[in-house]
Amino acid sequence: MAHLISASCPLNISSCSKNSPKSLTKCLSSLPTSLTLQTSVKPIKTRKKTHAHKLFSVRATTLQQPTTKTGSGADQTSGQESRPTRVMVIGGDGYCGWATSLHLSNKNYEVAIVDNLIRRHFDHQLGLDSLTPISSIHDRIRRWRSLTQKDIDLYIGDVCDFEFLSEAFTSFKPDAVVHFGEQRSAPYSMIDRSRAVYTQQNNVLGTLNVLFAIKEFSEDCHLVKLGTMGEYGTPNIDIEEGYITITHNGRADTLPYPKQASSFYHLSKVHDSNNIAFTCKAWGIRATDLNQGVVYGVRTDETEMHEELYNRFDYDGVFGTALNRFCVQAAVGHPLTVYGKGGQTRGYLDIRDTVQCVELAIANPANRGEFRVFNQFTEQFSVNQLASLATKAGEKLGIEVQTISVPNPRVEAEEHYYNAKHTKLIELGLEPHLLSDSLLDSLLNVAIQFKDRVDTKQIMPSVSWRKIGAKPKTVSA
Amino acid sequence: MAHLISASCPLNISSCSKNSPKSLTKCLSSLPTSLTLQTSVKPIKTRKKTHAHKLFSVRATTLQQPTTKTGSGADQTSGQESRPTRVMVIGGDGYCGWATSLHLSNKNYEVAIVDNLIRRHFDHQLGLDSLTPISSIHDRIRRWRSLTQKDIDLYIGDVCDFEFLSEAFTSFKPDAVVHFGEQRSAPYSMIDRSRAVYTQQNNVLGTLNVLFAIKEFSEDCHLVKLGTMGEYGTPNIDIEEGYITITHNGRADTLPYPKQASSFYHLSKVHDSNNIAFTCKAWGIRATDLNQGVVYGVRTDETEMHEELYNRFDYDGVFGTALNRFCVQAAVGHPLTVYGKGGQTRGYLDIRDTVQCVELAIANPANRGEFRVFNQFTEQFSVNQLASLATKAGEKLGIEVQTISVPNPRVEAEEHYYNAKHTKLIELGLEPHLLSDSLLDSLLNVAIQFKDRVDTKQIMPSVSWRKIGAKPKTVSA
Repeated sequence: MAHLISASCPLNISSCSKNSPKSLTKCLSSLPTSLTLQTSVKPIKTRKKTHAHKLFSVRATTLQQPTTKTGSGADQTSGQESRPTRVMVIGGDGYCGWATSLHLSNKNYEVAIVDNLIRRHFDHQLGLDSLTPISSIHDRIRRWRSLTQKDIDLYIGDVCDFEFLSEAFTSFKPDAVVHFGEQRSAPYSMIDRSRAVYTQQNNVLGTLNVLFAIKEFSEDCHLVKLGTMGEYGTPNIDIEEGYITITHNGRADTLPYPKQASSFYHLSKVHDSNNIAFTCKAWGIRATDLNQGVVYGVRTDETEMHEELYNRFDYDGVFGTALNRFCVQAAVGHPLTVYGKGGQTRGYLDIRDTVQCVELAIANPANRGEFRVFNQFTEQFSVNQLASLATKAGEKLGIEVQTISVPNPRVEAEEHYYNAKHTKLIELGLEPHLLSDSLLDSLLNVAIQFKDRVDTKQIMPSVSWRKIGAKPKTVSA
Repeated sequence: MAHLISASCPLNISSCSKNSPKSLTKCLSSLPTSLTLQTSVKPIKTRKKTHAHKLFSVRATTLQQPTTKTGSGADQTSGQESRPTRVMVIGGDGYCGWATSLHLSNKNYEVAIVDNLIRRHFDHQLGLDSLTPISSIHDRIRRWRSLTQKDIDLYIGDVCDFEFLSEAFTSFKPDAVVHFGEQRSAPYSMIDRSRAVYTQQNNVLGTLNVLFAIKEFSEDCHLVKLGTMGEYGTPNIDIEEGYITITHNGRADTLPYPKQASSFYHLSKVHDSNNIAFTCKAWGIRATDLNQGVVYGVRTDETEMHEELYNRFDYDGVFGTALNRFCVQAAVGHPLTVYGKGGQTRGYLDIRDTVQCVELAIANPANRGEFRVFNQFTEQFSVNQLASLATKAGEKLGIEVQTISVPNPRVEAEEHYYNAKHTKLIELGLEPHLLSDSLLDSLLNVAIQFKDRVDTKQIMPSVSWRKIGAKPKTVSA
């Protein structure tokens, strides 16, 4: 396997200095992101793929566990032999994707990141930035290699471009695909018509392409797809994990749980779930839909190893999730902004549990033809409860925290019943990090550490569910 | 209103003879269908829009009915005044769309057809043709005018092009939009990856654009959207109309009925339904989702008026629906091709009921913010029952009809429970045409009349749900 540059790369890479990673990185970075380009940025002279694979293989064997499959990328193919499970992480440069890629690599999975880097472009266009300073994907991967001697392959391109995706699939030959590669912000999808359309086009058609790539090139490959708890909405009955048994007029059937999504982003995930379920039935695809709650925190074991591995931390009104935003607000003395009555209750999880859950799903794959749904969160909180917890955490650090209610930019119930099941990942071995233990270390202290980087203009909600219009919305300086 | 050619049309139309409709039509037809072009093809010298509107208005008043709103395009705005309801029919050149457009025009609604004519292009690409000879949309509209003195406006373009759609909306100012403008064949969506992606892209994003156009330009406009009974799949419990009340763990809620679609086409309609439901809630859109069964027949009161008004009649393996295909097979002595066991049961309706149902929905609009779902069919049949009915009808005409089972190209249950509710349109006044009364007149006799036009190569299924691949599939001569 030699996939420094794919056959379809139209540029002559030999003009870059082959012995200088910086130079090569710069050269590669200058390419348009939509090119069919795949690269690992270490110097060519050190690329010994076969050796690297052997390293993985040996380590995987030593880390292999006897019963439940966790903590190891080893895939037993016979009694004595094993080879690392090959995981393609689509969207591996993003918030959850980067943490997951490092975690899997650290656990001796062989990892390839596929990413078009559009998330960084959104920040440029909207004038936003991560609270934490983050390195380029090229520097991130190079640093990871220098610290751990572990390779992460990199394919820069768009899964909506099927020619590119085909190249990535046939080159990397994944055993599992983790698909984070979607526009993942509800407010972003509600900015204007073109962003709404972009969100559904990118997410739904990208996932269709991934399904076709699995069918065409890697039929046994396990799709681990990131969904969202937001697909369910807030029904007045318990939320089950993907399916519900309904008794009606004297008959019964177990059917997909009814969905009531409340943004064009959340809807795109509902569409994905329906499309994937069909292909499991029609083609025998094996798939796990991870209906994830709201993720908080930034630190994982791997991202803590070096500042060039830091993960992004979004607190702005478009990409910031509630708890991250509250901690930044507390750190800079900005009142916590509760939208409306604050009774909105959702499932939450620590990013350290996101990476655990994804690994558990990969290590215990769905069967052929199975569309498996896990609700991926660990605790439920209302927005008011989060504000109260952030206030108490602030007190411990001597920070006085105010809370204000701001008009809710969303259309959602502000007081409602909410009881969502989340036992399947626990049964597979998930050991949750609870918010009460993480709030100070993984959240508030990080916010305080980087508080000089906070742009307070970005905190307030800037997108209205009701006022979205057909005309393109631009952002002033 | 003067919308012969919109401002954005880049061609110099003055090179066409303004007094010759044939010449103008030819000139316009040569334009790419994706251009932002709107045209009414009657000669300019006879265009007296104001007069035409007055005509509608007067007639609508005389046809106005006192209680249930049916049979009239009149919309009472005050005690004495009335004006015709303005209905935009997207996809008005297609099978259901053309019949509906004529029916509404005949009932004194003011009608505009919006169509990109892609359905005719599919026939060209796949080497298919309607059993019945059909005229160009321009000739159709001109003939309708000459017979009835009723105008139908024509906007040729793609609703996925928001600039075009905006022009059409702001020019025509619809009170209701009937949206048939989608790729509507399940087999077409299962030909190859590019057709699967096209189907979801065209259908889902086109509908998003329609929703944004309503919000932006015509907030009170009623969206009448064609869904399909195929959204529900074949659950083992009764199918309700859009919603089901579920009691679960001691609590109850009325939720969207769970969907289990079984092709990329059917899935696109599920995605539409979810998107529309959200906009009703978030923006106050008023919408009716018509989950239509399988339509049969070709004759309606209006299409029978002249051969240039004939509707299309598809019998091929891609666009032909089961009963139409069976009648053509009976007419040419081809065995009826039952897919698999033939226990597949679905809802069916006569195209004369399609046009009735759409009118009933328009005449009795949904409330602002309401997402109303009607199951639009009149009778349930299994495929075996249809084959048996076609055989008996053939006997009456002295035709011996054979039936064979062919391998099912689809992935679907071939023996299953099926009981779908369909009372809401009956409650609004639908008077069904039953198959037993229509089979000979509207179906078998039409098939016999045009049997010399049958291409028997097109009858067998050519698309496999399981064998669909990523590579583009081309059709040989």
